Amino acid sequence: MRIGGVAYRTIWVDPDDGWSIRIIDQTKLPWSLEIVRLTDMAQAAHAIRSMQVRGAPLIGAAAAYGLCLAVRQDASSEAMERDAALLAATRPTAINLRWALERMLTRLRNTPAADRVRIAYEEAAAIADEDVAQNEAIGRHGLKLIEQAVKPGRRVNVLTHCNAGWLATVDWGTALAPIYRAYDAGVDLHVWVDETRPRNQGAALTAWELGRHGVAHTVVADNAGGHLMQHGEVDLVIVGTDRVTRTGDVANKIGTYLKALAAHDNGVPFWVALPSTTIDWAVSDGVDEIPIEQRSAAEVTDVTGRTTDGKIATVRVAPVDSAAANPAFDVTPARLVTGLITERGRCEASARGLHGLFPERS
Amino acid sequence: MRIGGVAYRTIWVDPDDGWSIRIIDQTKLPWSLEIVRLTDMAQAAHAIRSMQVRGAPLIGAAAAYGLCLAVRQDASSEAMERDAALLAATRPTAINLRWALERMLTRLRNTPAADRVRIAYEEAAAIADEDVAQNEAIGRHGLKLIEQAVKPGRRVNVLTHCNAGWLATVDWGTALAPIYRAYDAGVDLHVWVDETRPRNQGAALTAWELGRHGVAHTVVADNAGGHLMQHGEVDLVIVGTDRVTRTGDVANKIGTYLKALAAHDNGVPFWVALPSTTIDWAVSDGVDEIPIEQRSAAEVTDVTGRTTDGKIATVRVAPVDSAAANPAFDVTPARLVTGLITERGRCEASARGLHGLFPERS
Repeated sequence: MRIGGVAYRTIWVDPDDGWSIRIIDQTKLPWSLEIVRLTDMAQAAHAIRSMQVRGAPLIGAAAAYGLCLAVRQDASSEAMERDAALLAATRPTAINLRWALERMLTRLRNTPAADRVRIAYEEAAAIADEDVAQNEAIGRHGLKLIEQAVKPGRRVNVLTHCNAGWLATVDWGTALAPIYRAYDAGVDLHVWVDETRPRNQGAALTAWELGRHGVAHTVVADNAGGHLMQHGEVDLVIVGTDRVTRTGDVANKIGTYLKALAAHDNGVPFWVALPSTTIDWAVSDGVDEIPIEQRSAAEVTDVTGRTTDGKIATVRVAPVDSAAANPAFDVTPARLVTGLITERGRCEASARGLHGLFPERS
Repeated sequence: MRIGGVAYRTIWVDPDDGWSIRIIDQTKLPWSLEIVRLTDMAQAAHAIRSMQVRGAPLIGAAAAYGLCLAVRQDASSEAMERDAALLAATRPTAINLRWALERMLTRLRNTPAADRVRIAYEEAAAIADEDVAQNEAIGRHGLKLIEQAVKPGRRVNVLTHCNAGWLATVDWGTALAPIYRAYDAGVDLHVWVDETRPRNQGAALTAWELGRHGVAHTVVADNAGGHLMQHGEVDLVIVGTDRVTRTGDVANKIGTYLKALAAHDNGVPFWVALPSTTIDWAVSDGVDEIPIEQRSAAEVTDVTGRTTDGKIATVRVAPVDSAAANPAFDVTPARLVTGLITERGRCEASARGLHGLFPERS
């Protein structure tokens, strides 16, 4: 991703010191692009928990680099296992977090303590590079869907929910990768961006990303998608995911299920883009088995943005004596999903579909 | 409705001068209860357009009183017809607006100009009083639904969208009337309040109303309802409406359709409460025929609330170079509606159901 002509990833090792981790603080977007330096495990855990970094693939990479900082502080097996558990507990829903830590531990457990720092950075870099390559491939496979939706003389309208873009991954994005590919290929394209309450990742992150790349887009309230689909204003939906079951159920940002229902009711294709690191091969029933993070009520009752005089301010929108609840994800049953777009291609959202693409995991 | 022990309606004739109109400025809630005085037709039109008064039944009463102020300024037939047309154009979706003005004109056209002011106030008062009586009846008929949902040892969870309460009507509310009745009858009750972006009428108005009455409630993002229903946390949905077709299609605040889809998918009863003044007997296909108001993009990109130091402030939540769209209503097809609750009782959301309750209109 390029911003003002400079190529960025969302996470990288500081080239000057060769070990500290740099991230873009996503809680400051779209108003300022602030780079934060992480120097220990606690800072990495905080960055994940406070959503300075978010998005399932990026959380995985951030946890991997967090473990690098951890073994740099203490490379003993006891400390490494404890720190990995602490990092794994920062957020419950995205499976990539656990996947990345398991991969790191598998490599590091068989490595002498003296070599662990070097090997950890090597493995974390591999995780980050593989994420970029997978997302590039998702972009290629998804591009065809968008090209198929082209009707002469009419722009293609894609609706997306939350942010599954460049900012949710190390680079490229999952749901937005095909959109960037299509835009670059000259497809006349427009994106409906769900604002994605309560944290507004659509309005704050997706709209910002699309704007930087030059992709035409319109922000809408989360409530609007069904109406747009009823009136033929959406050609396809593409979203990301925090965890896909082996049967094709899709956990994603709260509200995704509602858009899938509307897409189904209106015959609009509903696609989910994911690297295979987001598949939880151990889980069959998404609604029953995927843990859903309950976040702070303040995210619902309070909204942060920029005032006309340029200050960042937080305003309360609900009465002070009203409670709020904040489930952060929901699960879309596989029956509502047209298909999955992975780095290996597209497939049906089902055990059979996933088996076809990933026979070694079935 | 009582606030701090004082009984209020949402609109009334000033008892001191006997002619000016008093309303509660709903754009100032929940932070302050401000009473505004309307003294001419232009102010009444502004109050409706700017949503100082909103909610289909209240819009009807406000238009009726607006026409009182209009004939007080100029009781000629030409002026009266022109002013009625101006009032009718303030908002397009709620049918009550047109209904109330038609009723006023039918009465006033046959009245000599000299008597029009007196007759106009008489008719507007009748419209307001009938709205209160109808909503009281809706409360009685809806109460049974809530009582039927009671399971021993478990509170009843009702989800509602937007504000169809006391504030949306002259008194009592439509969707909230059964809830107030049930609460007063001692039913253990809890309401999930959709915040209802972009104008937050759920968080700002419904939560405030329920809180003043003492009804337990929790504000949730509009995205959360499907997840709550998947997990058995919603026993029934009750919403209001801005226009119901003769076939039972329901126009209501944007996002209602998504909740109806989720209710249908999870076997949760989805009820719509309305006085018969909200039925458009001339329209058969809601999605095709009901005009949907497109409101300002700023309602999506900007959020107003209260800062921690008590000031009312507006913050922008989307990048300054991102466009936004703001359809204010959507249409829920009758097939997704469990039934309608009217002042005459409950019925199926269909031409047959409505014919059964209102045979004189069929």
